[in-house]
Amino acid sequence: MNVAPGVDDATQAAVLAAIRFDAAGLVPAIAQQHDTGEVLMMAWMNAESLRESLATGRVCYFSRSRNALWRKGETSGQIQRLQELRVDCDGDTLLLLVDQTGVACHTGRRSCFFRAAVPGGLAEIAAPLVAPDVLYGGAPDR
Amino acid sequence: MNVAPGVDDATQAAVLAAIRFDAAGLVPAIAQQHDTGEVLMMAWMNAESLRESLATGRVCYFSRSRNALWRKGETSGQIQRLQELRVDCDGDTLLLLVDQTGVACHTGRRSCFFRAAVPGGLAEIAAPLVAPDVLYGGAPDR
Repeated sequence: MNVAPGVDDATQAAVLAAIRFDAAGLVPAIAQQHDTGEVLMMAWMNAESLRESLATGRVCYFSRSRNALWRKGETSGQIQRLQELRVDCDGDTLLLLVDQTGVACHTGRRSCFFRAAVPGGLAEIAAPLVAPDVLYGGAPDR
Repeated sequence: MNVAPGVDDATQAAVLAAIRFDAAGLVPAIAQQHDTGEVLMMAWMNAESLRESLATGRVCYFSRSRNALWRKGETSGQIQRLQELRVDCDGDTLLLLVDQTGVACHTGRRSCFFRAAVPGGLAEIAAPLVAPDVLYGGAPDR
């Protein structure tokens, strides 16, 4: 389904009840571009960020480094619209089907997974589409 | 690249050096079917399971519940051949492009992400392709 802004409280509660947050109150969330299937990034959510994402239709994570809600794209404009939320068999991982505006990665690349194992080590398989300082003006978006 | 069985020791070492394992020595690994883009599952790897996966070309995870290596498909036959390994910008998440034999999920479904948020809660969006007791004969594969 499309998760329109304004998923009702009962739905939010039912979804949250199915999720097994870890000891820190977090659950990993994989973001995948809904139409191309590209895996963009993985980040963490707590109950509050998940509830906000469902309520607003804009993806909000929890930043472990800042210990605070991380409204994806708040600084950079590179937001993620939530198209569908899936929960795995164990309830301990989320798959977010999103519509990514611009780039997901703070390096300016579409996906955070831009390094691939090749003989000898890792190789970059994607170049930045936009310079990080253009995205942030110095303030990292997470 | 295709990760052929027998990735050399130097490549294994270079890949491992780029990965930031967590305090428990683990890193989350997302498995995606290499040709369709379907996200199949998320599990965890330690250094040993990653090294084995690179060396053999067959995906091996680390089971947190069993506290042991988890050679995916060892009981069920539902193995994952590693086609490509990608590492994210922070080095703290892996993306495995795999060729999944049969089903990834212990419930007998192709993907573990078979529940979607819909008005009122979660709905199953995929049915089992095979019965779990056919897969395991009682022994869970993880």
